[in-house]
Amino acid sequence: MNFLEERILKDGIIKKGNVLKVDSFLNHQMDINLLDEIGKEFKRRFSDTEITKILTIESSGIAIACAAARYFEAPVLFAKKSKSINIDGDMYVAEVESFTHKCKNQVIVSKSFLKENDKVLIIDDFLANGCALQGLISITEEAGATVEGIGIAIEKGFQIGGTVIRNLGYRLESLAIVDEMNDEDKTIKFREQ
Amino acid sequence: MNFLEERILKDGIIKKGNVLKVDSFLNHQMDINLLDEIGKEFKRRFSDTEITKILTIESSGIAIACAAARYFEAPVLFAKKSKSINIDGDMYVAEVESFTHKCKNQVIVSKSFLKENDKVLIIDDFLANGCALQGLISITEEAGATVEGIGIAIEKGFQIGGTVIRNLGYRLESLAIVDEMNDEDKTIKFREQ
Repeated sequence: MNFLEERILKDGIIKKGNVLKVDSFLNHQMDINLLDEIGKEFKRRFSDTEITKILTIESSGIAIACAAARYFEAPVLFAKKSKSINIDGDMYVAEVESFTHKCKNQVIVSKSFLKENDKVLIIDDFLANGCALQGLISITEEAGATVEGIGIAIEKGFQIGGTVIRNLGYRLESLAIVDEMNDEDKTIKFREQ
Repeated sequence: MNFLEERILKDGIIKKGNVLKVDSFLNHQMDINLLDEIGKEFKRRFSDTEITKILTIESSGIAIACAAARYFEAPVLFAKKSKSINIDGDMYVAEVESFTHKCKNQVIVSKSFLKENDKVLIIDDFLANGCALQGLISITEEAGATVEGIGIAIEKGFQIGGTVIRNLGYRLESLAIVDEMNDEDKTIKFREQ
């Protein structure tokens, strides 16, 4: 069991409906030493890869992306989320539909900061159905840049996002993959990696 | 002139209506070495102060708060912004009105992560009229915690926020205070500190 899996077992809270709350250490209050370990682990897993830009999405991806950026020595770019606004031509915009919430959102990045020679590592805190991630991939490819890899802190292995992304041939590394969780006996089963 | 003022002159873009765009290095794309320098400078300015928690607000405060947290060895807590939603009793909620946009927003923090013995450093990227900051102060005091200081990257000295906060007796450190900017001749005048 790795450091993140251990921390999830220690401080994560399992709620009904397959909700895993990690807001005491990862996405509301944030343990800065844990973030650093996450950044270092992404660097270890992608150590053979040249990265020129780390791309994430507001808000809870930003801290993890910044922690990783220190190890990759690359700038961070965070996409903005918006409910359908008028965007001028200087922006890449991906329309993404939330499978869970049945609502549409826009994922927005300025064209100035993503170029065709960029080698991009996409980072986020959670992967479930992967709608936001699909938007980030779409924008990267629209820019002509290359998705060198995708680093996720916690993947919900019982939802479809991870499978889709791997089937599409992307290199996806999730530090903890939750295959089952039970809110009655408070158990979590992680995938062996 | 300090490192941040120099960077603003080099890469900031002045637009009509007193808009200063720093999205190439601070609040969309982020220069990770600059963030580190900002974190270190906050630590230098508040070196006499014990801090147990760094409080910021999504999204663009998060990266700076994380950079500072490494020097203060304190966890980061980021407040969430929302258009008026129903919140359960476990949250501190401040209603803040945007003076500029004339809209109301809620600033939300879980009660679990802000306690009466907390010594709080509030961090944000920009201070203009200070509405978001007022919400963060209000929540900290509602929790019975102490605002030990406020660290801002860029203060618009020609707007009222900084004056209000200093008049109220808070210790406010802004790394760059823009007193005047001119979108025609592209000049910026920083306040001497």
